[in-house]
Amino acid sequence: MTLSKTADLNCLFEPRAVAVIGASGAPGKTGHTILKNIIDGGFPGAVYPVNPRGGEILGRPVVTSVSELPGPGEVDLAVVVIPAAAVPGALFELAERGVKAAIIISGGFREAGNDALEVELNTAIAKTGLRVIGPNCQGVVATGARLCASWPLTTRKGPIAVISQSGTVAAAVAGWAEGEGFGVSGVVSLGNRADLDEADLIAHFSRDPGTAAVALYVEGLADGRRFMAAARALRQSGKALFVLRPGRTARGIEAAQSHTKSMAGSYQVFVGVARQVGAVSVPDLDTLFDTAKTWSYLRGPSRPGLAVVTSSGGSAILAADTAEEAGYPLADLASATAASLKAALPPHCVIGNPLDLTGDADAPRFETAARLLLGTREVGVVLAIFGDPIPGAAETMTRLRGEAEAAGKQIACCYVGGGETEKSEVGLMWAQGLLVFPTPERAARALALARQLGRRQLPARKGDRR
Amino acid sequence: MTLSKTADLNCLFEPRAVAVIGASGAPGKTGHTILKNIIDGGFPGAVYPVNPRGGEILGRPVVTSVSELPGPGEVDLAVVVIPAAAVPGALFELAERGVKAAIIISGGFREAGNDALEVELNTAIAKTGLRVIGPNCQGVVATGARLCASWPLTTRKGPIAVISQSGTVAAAVAGWAEGEGFGVSGVVSLGNRADLDEADLIAHFSRDPGTAAVALYVEGLADGRRFMAAARALRQSGKALFVLRPGRTARGIEAAQSHTKSMAGSYQVFVGVARQVGAVSVPDLDTLFDTAKTWSYLRGPSRPGLAVVTSSGGSAILAADTAEEAGYPLADLASATAASLKAALPPHCVIGNPLDLTGDADAPRFETAARLLLGTREVGVVLAIFGDPIPGAAETMTRLRGEAEAAGKQIACCYVGGGETEKSEVGLMWAQGLLVFPTPERAARALALARQLGRRQLPARKGDRR
Repeated sequence: MTLSKTADLNCLFEPRAVAVIGASGAPGKTGHTILKNIIDGGFPGAVYPVNPRGGEILGRPVVTSVSELPGPGEVDLAVVVIPAAAVPGALFELAERGVKAAIIISGGFREAGNDALEVELNTAIAKTGLRVIGPNCQGVVATGARLCASWPLTTRKGPIAVISQSGTVAAAVAGWAEGEGFGVSGVVSLGNRADLDEADLIAHFSRDPGTAAVALYVEGLADGRRFMAAARALRQSGKALFVLRPGRTARGIEAAQSHTKSMAGSYQVFVGVARQVGAVSVPDLDTLFDTAKTWSYLRGPSRPGLAVVTSSGGSAILAADTAEEAGYPLADLASATAASLKAALPPHCVIGNPLDLTGDADAPRFETAARLLLGTREVGVVLAIFGDPIPGAAETMTRLRGEAEAAGKQIACCYVGGGETEKSEVGLMWAQGLLVFPTPERAARALALARQLGRRQLPARKGDRR
Repeated sequence: MTLSKTADLNCLFEPRAVAVIGASGAPGKTGHTILKNIIDGGFPGAVYPVNPRGGEILGRPVVTSVSELPGPGEVDLAVVVIPAAAVPGALFELAERGVKAAIIISGGFREAGNDALEVELNTAIAKTGLRVIGPNCQGVVATGARLCASWPLTTRKGPIAVISQSGTVAAAVAGWAEGEGFGVSGVVSLGNRADLDEADLIAHFSRDPGTAAVALYVEGLADGRRFMAAARALRQSGKALFVLRPGRTARGIEAAQSHTKSMAGSYQVFVGVARQVGAVSVPDLDTLFDTAKTWSYLRGPSRPGLAVVTSSGGSAILAADTAEEAGYPLADLASATAASLKAALPPHCVIGNPLDLTGDADAPRFETAARLLLGTREVGVVLAIFGDPIPGAAETMTRLRGEAEAAGKQIACCYVGGGETEKSEVGLMWAQGLLVFPTPERAARALALARQLGRRQLPARKGDRR
């Protein structure tokens, strides 16, 4: 009875035309927001609002029933925002019109105690062969296809894919990425995972050339073995998987059980599973964002030898503590390096690692010091912490990045305590595609975790190291 | 030989007139920035640039030597930005003009290996009786006196005082406070602590009616016993002390030794000392800011019973984990409370603590739920996590705050994943003086640590609990 399914999710991520089943003319209603975001996001294909009341919504003529959609086969994807009870029936109608994939936003299934309705939905999915995201989800963003079938409006194309059992976590990571000017390749809010789960999506993004890192929020795995296989394949393709998995405490576990009813096993077991497949568990939402961002810019710090150069001795100590705790301690400088630094810098600079250029440091002093460090054998990555209002920081770091890359090395920035100068320089750094963090600890933690992931050998195969 | 000194630091924090020794006409020079910030910050008293070259700087006539300053006794405070070797001599000249306090920005003393010059400075301080901040520091801000003798420009008056051995840490906390619209009472960059140290400043802010919480960054205490006495007195005055003390790792300790040469004892010993005096150690810069902010808005959460109400089940789990790990687990709801919530809310809401109003929750649903929770015996604090673009959140929370306060209870907000709506609502929340956090974990951690501090009994005396 079950139709064979393609693993190819192009119908979902690159549809030619989209229908919104349950489109609404009332601002504030989800059926309105979704339609509006698909249109405002610049989706280039046809968009069909479907609502029995007909008329026009946002300038688009409304189709009064699914059976009146053009086709068959013209519409690939439907976004479904109708009462739960009507969803299984709608899937059959959609399949008849040749629709291949559905994003079911509607809630009111298993998560609300309506297990029978979820069974009915599962049957409809199996019989129709539709590929389904949801139900009970916040939709999908595919920036490559200029499709924002979700909220808030997200459009900026970038190297991070977000897969999440929490719509909020997905929206937060995507929003921060957009805010810093680098964006996302895709965002998927998994919902109840009646069909597609994290393993399917990880497999999709491992094949997606626009994705460098996947940020996953998951309370429980739908299928541990499939997850492990997909995660391994992702890592073997040179991409990274960072996972935020809550449920470290009794109350957290209890809350997760209420939320998605999917938590299984202990936090420690999950951390071990992640390690086995070359993924890294992160402790919080900020770190989920920071690590995926770091990988997107640098991949894993490819070389050992972290050096911190700064105008702020205090910030550097905070970075040194965090880096060491996270397993990426600052490198020891060779005595020749120390001597060169001493010769090149004013006498009041504190030579060492961290290298404290002191509060009167300007951008040229950073440049001298960072260039010298990047030229040594012992340093692979320079983290520059600008701890004062230092103009020219972005320009300097852009120049140094080119030199570092030519030498197979890497740089990262942190800007903190710099007032209005900080705001404008950080804006320039974002525009230049520089990796920049708001605090020393966030910088050090993200670099350490990305390095941890980059170093991890997968026992199964060779060839995935850089 | 040593003159008696007043503990009263009004000469420093409320000077009638200020001289900038080493004022410069060259933008970018510290002697220019400091003068400019004093003027731009709106300091109402006279400001005298001092520089042997004379002329005019920023429209002010330049006094060519300290001996030509008006007085004696007309200028209370001097900011000193001249080469280190000239500083001790300048202090004697300043004392002759009746100056009472000096902020020595200049570096080049002990921290640069010039121990003899620091001894000479100490002698000058002892002989003149001047109260001195620094040397080798980033200055002082006293918003009550509209004095910004520091950088970046900081002017907004608020309830947090920052005392720091790192100028960057001080500027970061002050900048974030200004950005969120509540500001600081004072900022002190300690530098080498040739005279005034953290104990003196804690004592000052414990008497300052504009200060509710002190954020301290310290690598090593100048005098453990005096610190403990001052910290106890601060706590007994109902104020809070949150301390970021780095040096948890070998590399961090080493870096701290290079920075301020003041680290002593282990991190764990320091954490114990802080606990003894009713202060709380925080793990990172974000948390230093978050906890001082939390205390400024709520004091310590005065009652047990933390409840989380949210549109985002995932965010609530992240908050639940963090709150429990930080020692403030979510409260158990009474069965009568659960029944009332069930009756008042749509059937698909997930009743419990956290209380998941689900993704379609609007501000009125938050209001219903939070009001009901605040009316129970078991809930003392409601953390509302808005995890979607929810308009009206700020207005609702402002109304609930009034009701909560009338009942001796408290509220806090987190807004995350809400796109443009989040930006405007968070702006409104800041304007309304609501306590709001950017992530669930930061909210939970700060509430837990502020609660920890609020609960802590000081063995010495009674009467400091609220």
